[in-house]
Parts: sequence; structure tokens; C-alpha cells
Amino acid sequence: MAMDDSLMVDGLTKGIPPGIQPIPLNSVGGMGWNVLREDMTMPLAVLKRSALDHNGRWMARFLEATGTLLAPHGKTTMSPALFDRQLADGAWGITLATVQQVRVARAGGIGRIVLANQLVGRQAIGYIAAEMARDPGFDFYCLVDSVDGVRQLADRLRTDPPGRPFQVMVEVGAMGGRTGCRTEEVALSVARAVKQAEPLLALRGVEGYEGMVRGDGGGEGDRDDAIRAFLDRMVGVAASCLREDLFAAGPVILSAGGSAFYDMVAGRLGTAGLPRETLVVLRSGCYLTHDSKSYETMFQQIRTRMPEVDGFGPGPSAALEVWAYVQSRPQADKAILTVGKRDISYDVDLPVPTLWFRPGLHDAPAAMPPGTAVVELNDQHAHLSVPPEADLKVGDMVAFSISHPCTTFDKWQVLFLVDDRYDIVSAVKTWF
Amino acid sequence: MAMDDSLMVDGLTKGIPPGIQPIPLNSVGGMGWNVLREDMTMPLAVLKRSALDHNGRWMARFLEATGTLLAPHGKTTMSPALFDRQLADGAWGITLATVQQVRVARAGGIGRIVLANQLVGRQAIGYIAAEMARDPGFDFYCLVDSVDGVRQLADRLRTDPPGRPFQVMVEVGAMGGRTGCRTEEVALSVARAVKQAEPLLALRGVEGYEGMVRGDGGGEGDRDDAIRAFLDRMVGVAASCLREDLFAAGPVILSAGGSAFYDMVAGRLGTAGLPRETLVVLRSGCYLTHDSKSYETMFQQIRTRMPEVDGFGPGPSAALEVWAYVQSRPQADKAILTVGKRDISYDVDLPVPTLWFRPGLHDAPAAMPPGTAVVELNDQHAHLSVPPEADLKVGDMVAFSISHPCTTFDKWQVLFLVDDRYDIVSAVKTWF
Repeated sequence: MAMDDSLMVDGLTKGIPPGIQPIPLNSVGGMGWNVLREDMTMPLAVLKRSALDHNGRWMARFLEATGTLLAPHGKTTMSPALFDRQLADGAWGITLATVQQVRVARAGGIGRIVLANQLVGRQAIGYIAAEMARDPGFDFYCLVDSVDGVRQLADRLRTDPPGRPFQVMVEVGAMGGRTGCRTEEVALSVARAVKQAEPLLALRGVEGYEGMVRGDGGGEGDRDDAIRAFLDRMVGVAASCLREDLFAAGPVILSAGGSAFYDMVAGRLGTAGLPRETLVVLRSGCYLTHDSKSYETMFQQIRTRMPEVDGFGPGPSAALEVWAYVQSRPQADKAILTVGKRDISYDVDLPVPTLWFRPGLHDAPAAMPPGTAVVELNDQHAHLSVPPEADLKVGDMVAFSISHPCTTFDKWQVLFLVDDRYDIVSAVKTWF
Repeated sequence: MAMDDSLMVDGLTKGIPPGIQPIPLNSVGGMGWNVLREDMTMPLAVLKRSALDHNGRWMARFLEATGTLLAPHGKTTMSPALFDRQLADGAWGITLATVQQVRVARAGGIGRIVLANQLVGRQAIGYIAAEMARDPGFDFYCLVDSVDGVRQLADRLRTDPPGRPFQVMVEVGAMGGRTGCRTEEVALSVARAVKQAEPLLALRGVEGYEGMVRGDGGGEGDRDDAIRAFLDRMVGVAASCLREDLFAAGPVILSAGGSAFYDMVAGRLGTAGLPRETLVVLRSGCYLTHDSKSYETMFQQIRTRMPEVDGFGPGPSAALEVWAYVQSRPQADKAILTVGKRDISYDVDLPVPTLWFRPGLHDAPAAMPPGTAVVELNDQHAHLSVPPEADLKVGDMVAFSISHPCTTFDKWQVLFLVDDRYDIVSAVKTWF
């Protein structure tokens, strides 16, 4: 939490009472604030501490059972305080997507970073090289997926030498997908280019992202078969690289695994059977907060594919909620709430109203009146369809559950951890 | 710019070179940075200074010609430095959507604020009341759209008395739309409730937001007819309030006008013919940066409806661009760029690639190779469909034009003003 310890917050930050003058972020938990007592402004993003604790323990059990490592994707939360929590739960490193994100993690003291992208641009490559030169303990990995990319990286590193081998993984991709070599032939040509650039570069592993892989049909089975075939291709590339002696010294890293299919990744890459010590590094970023729709659906599929996860106890639990006020009930069948695209994710599913609290009436949040649903989001408003008889009025508070944590986190500078009574127990800063 | 003057920025902020230690925000323009020389990291959001200047002048001409006032919606940019620019261009005040936004504007020294919402919640009402008590020069307006809302506001103000009348406008809404009274009868009952709450409350005007009004058919003509009827209803409510002597002393304010139909608003509300001095306050927030698709299309419709705008010279020009690198060309027909949902709006239209710059090849940005289009955005990546023969490779830079400025601004802590050579001439901080 070193990074958050030096930060001040005040009423300029969403959620903080507007009249508050600057206070240390780490004193927020000592202010005696409670969400239900209307101590905060709304909209308000809260993280349930008990759910974070549970999810961290759950993932530790999964990793132990499968013998895999985790470098959770930090882009989800971009909160070094949450990165610290993940490392304390046993994470091997932190995965990131951009050089600004790496810069934030380095300021937060993160020692091992996987940049799950090919590094491009003068500033990005120059910064990583300088950081490697500055700190011999900085253990950095990035991806390469083209001979041209390898050449550009090596050329830049000749100008800004990091003083030790720059560790890369060759990225395997799927036709029609995102980045990554489309064929084993291309992957091997990239790996050979890395080998030729030794000792400037060092090939440390094979990487892929199965989350973009689609099957030919539209069904789950087709998709899962395509993902398994994709993981087989990753193992095949690694085996070929070993045969050609393209890897640098040390264990071979096999890394894949977003937040939806990490069971298949652990299953396939964990049994790769390569003739060299192998580290399987998963990169799930969303397990920590989970959600109530997109990843919850995916988790139910994991339970079907890997029934032994039920032996780890209850699965991950949704930790992230956004609260808002009813601002208007302009028609019997409609309410407008003080939450919008600026506050909550809307890219996968619209948010779902789950809890209802009327100051002066309720002692604890009640279930939402049945039949309510978000039908539209504007920048700063949610349109809620409401049964005409529902008792929901101006000034009532509503909690929304979310789908896709990444695009909710990025709408908040500070998120507030709450206990089960909605007392604010601490706060974490994000750096988007 | 007082608020930005005290701020420091460093490599933790998107766009700033990662190795930069803290420097004053207002020294960014003196660093000698140039976008095309790869002095910045990408993605990078830039504002073209010449376009901002032009758009400010254009809107000043529009206001002068129509005799209307402007309280631009500050939620678009949430940049007090840009608010200052808008006030310097002659804006009457700044419109905002939430109490946190008001708090930011107050920190930025904004004296006149329209909160284009009903104020709900203990913290929100308490803060505004305290701020009114603290600063006699704070000229604040908000909306009411229900008798219940008026009662809740008045009850809270009795607890936290602001020491002077709290100015409200009754909000007129459209059936099926967002907030606002659905009928003249409801609007008048709300206005009467305000009158009964004098001197705690003061009814200062009638407000509406025509941007949510839809016609019965799907066409532009239907929509425009519905908007005109909506504006007629606003005038009718104001006339009835005058007949019943519900307004407090001073001019009556009629306020509507987002960024799409302000010509119709100026035309109808500007000729309301009320028997009392009337201020027509438009609230367009997007004119300053404009865009390349959504509001550009709307502006072409304004030209059709109000041909005299062509007499003001060239119309508003797109000021906001987001730059990214080509990170991968994994297939001949596809490129992946370093820009995603975290960086650019995707709620109305996907971004459009417009300019291409290859370091070492180009002296100035060239037009994008024809036939490229964004087909998908992930959190941190754009999928670009590319003609196989197009010369676009890893490390190339691409500028994207945007649709809907609001949801691009909120993805940046700092945006960089550039001159026409893409020298960084200054930077503005946002407060989302």
C-alpha cells in the first residue's frame, strides 16, 4: 500500500463528501463513514471486503490444486493496493497491457511484470530498458508476434541497452483473433529471430490469449474445442522451440488464461509434458472482484467442465457494487437514477439493480422491488423500467451489480472498501 | 487556469513520457514535446488548439446572432481550464450534472452553475447549501420535477439553511424520455409547491432537455416536429407560471439545448414572447471539441434547418483526436492498435482511423490507407480491418477521430493541446 499511503483525497473525488478538505487516502477508513447513512455522495463504487478476501482465498486454492502460477492482469483494477493484496495471496507477478500501466506498477513497487503485448514506440521501449538498467531486480517479460516487431525491439534496445537480456515470449494467436502468430511456422520464425538477437533478447516462453478464440459453430462446445486446440498449438510451438534450442536458459514459461477459461488453460498447459522445467502462468484479472453476470456465467461453465472446483468451497463472489439515488420517478413505469456511462460498465451487459434502501425506512438493504431493469444508460443517468405499483421514490438508494469489472473500475479514481454493514473500512486509488 | 496551475504530473499519467518525474502541469507546453517525434506514449488524446479557438468563436457568433446565452454542459470535458476558456468566450455560466462536478467547478472558481438535475441526497444538498452560505456570489440553479422532490429539498434546506433563496427551475419532460414533468398539470403542481416553499426556494425558470425527445415515426422530420412541440410545452408552462405569479423576482429563465438541436431551441425559446424579461440559456457542451461523426451529422442538419449559420463562416471543427501505435499486423487483412475502450468512446460509434504517420518515413501525417475501419474494440486494443495490400506495419502511428466527445474525455486524466505541427503547447486536467 506504499503508493496509496502518500496520497491525499478530498471532495473533488467521486464518492467523497464534497465538503471534505484533503485527507490522507489511508485515513478514509477511519472517518466513520457509512454508505447507508448517506455519508457519501452517489454514484458510489464499493468493494465488499469479505468478497475480496473470499475470492483471494478461492484462487489460491485453485492455483495450489492445479500447480499453476498467477500473474493477474492488473489492467482490470489498476490499483497497486489491490496488486499488493494479490501478491500477498501468492501471485507470481502482475500482468499489464500498456507502458503507462507498467509505470504505475513500478511506482507501486511491483518487481515482476508481464506486459501481455508487443512493446512498440520509442518511449515505451526506452522506459522499460532504463528501468531494467536502474533496478537489477526488475523481472520483466513482454510478447513478440512478428519478425518485424523483434527487429524494431532489438534496434531500439541497441540504442537504449538495458544491460541484461530482455525477456520475451512468442505470442501464438488464432486466425481472426487479436494479436499473435497465426501459424506455428510464423511463431517459429519469430522465435528464431529472437534467438538471433541474443544476448540482447532472450526467449523465455510461449504465450497466448484463449479468451478471443471462437469456435466455428456458435456453441459452448465448439468454442471449448477451439480453445483446447489453441492450447495444443501453444504447446506444439513450445515443443518445436525446445527442439530447435531457441529458448534461453531457465524454465520455459507457458502463459495463457483470462478470467473465463483458466480451468482449461491449467488443465492443458499444466500437462504439457515438455522436456524442460515449465512454469504455467495464468493471467486472470477479474477473479478478485468477479461480477454478477458475464464472469459469473463463465464460472458456472468452469464448474461444469471441472467439477472438482466445487471441492474448493463456494465459488468467487461479486465484490463490486455501484450505488445511486433515485433522482426522478417521472412516470409510474419509470425511474431515473444518478448513475450513468461515466460510472458503470455497459459494454457487455447493462447493470442490474439488486438492492434497495430508503433512508428512514430500512435498517438494511432490501431486495429490489421485482420487475425492475435498466433499459438505457446516458452519460450520467440510468433509465430504470419499474412496475407501476413498485414503491420506489425520489431519494431512495439502489445498488447495481455489474458485468465486466474492467470497465467499471476505469470510471473511478477511488473505490471504497466496505464491510457487510456498508461501513467504509478503507479506500483504494486507481491509475487509469 | 488557477486550478491547473498548482498541479503536478508525471509518468503515471497516460500520454506523459513514463520516465518523467513530477513537473507542473502548466510546464508541459514548455517541454518541447512533439507527438510525431514520439515524445509521448500512446494512446494519446490531443486537442487541436486551432479547432478549439475556431469553435469558441463560432459559438460566440451563434449566440450573438440568436440573442441567447450559453451555460455549456461542463460534464463533457470536466476540465476547469476549458470552462475558463468557455467563460472567456462569453459563456453565462457552466452547466453540470452531479454534485461532485459542481465541487470541481467551484474549486475552479466558477461562480454561476446550473445543475441540470434534481438535487437528491444528504451530502449533495448539504454541500450546495453550505457553499451558498459561504460565498454570497455563488449563483446556483437546479431542477425540480416532482412535488416529492421539492418537499425533500425544502426539508433538507431547513436543516442546512443556505441563508438565501435556493433557485430552482421546473423541469419539463417528454413521455418515455428521461426526467421532467410529463404534463403541464404536473409541472404546475411542482411550480406551486416551489412557490409554497418560498422564501426557502425560488422558482426562476422552466427547463427541458430536447435531446431525449423522439418523434412517433423514426424520421428526422418527426423528431424535429416533436422537439418543436416539446419547446412549445416549455413555453406554455412558463406562461402558466407567470399567469399564476409563481416565479420569483427577476428575469424568467428558459433553458434547453444540448449539442444537437440548439438552433431549434434558440428559435423557439428566443421568441417565447413572455410578458416578463426572459433569458434563454442554451447548454451545449460538445460544440467546443465537436466530433467527426455524431455531432458532425447533427450539425449538417442544423445547417439545413437554419441556413443562416453558413453566414457565420465554416462550422465547428473536430478538435479531439486519439493517437495509437500499430502493435501487430497478425494477418494481412488485420492490424491491432494500442487503443481500446479505456481510451476512446465506443458508445455511439466506433472510432474512425483518419491519419497515418510512420516515424522515419513521413514528415507530416498522411491520410489513412483507404478501406481501413475499426471493427472491434477491447479494453486496450482496437481491431482494424485493413486491405491486404495496405502498407501499415508495426510501429506506425494512427490518429482516430471520435464520435461523442463526453465518453472520450472521461478516459483521460490529462489531454494535450497541440498546434498544427503536433507540438504539445499545453495540457488540461480533467476531474471525472
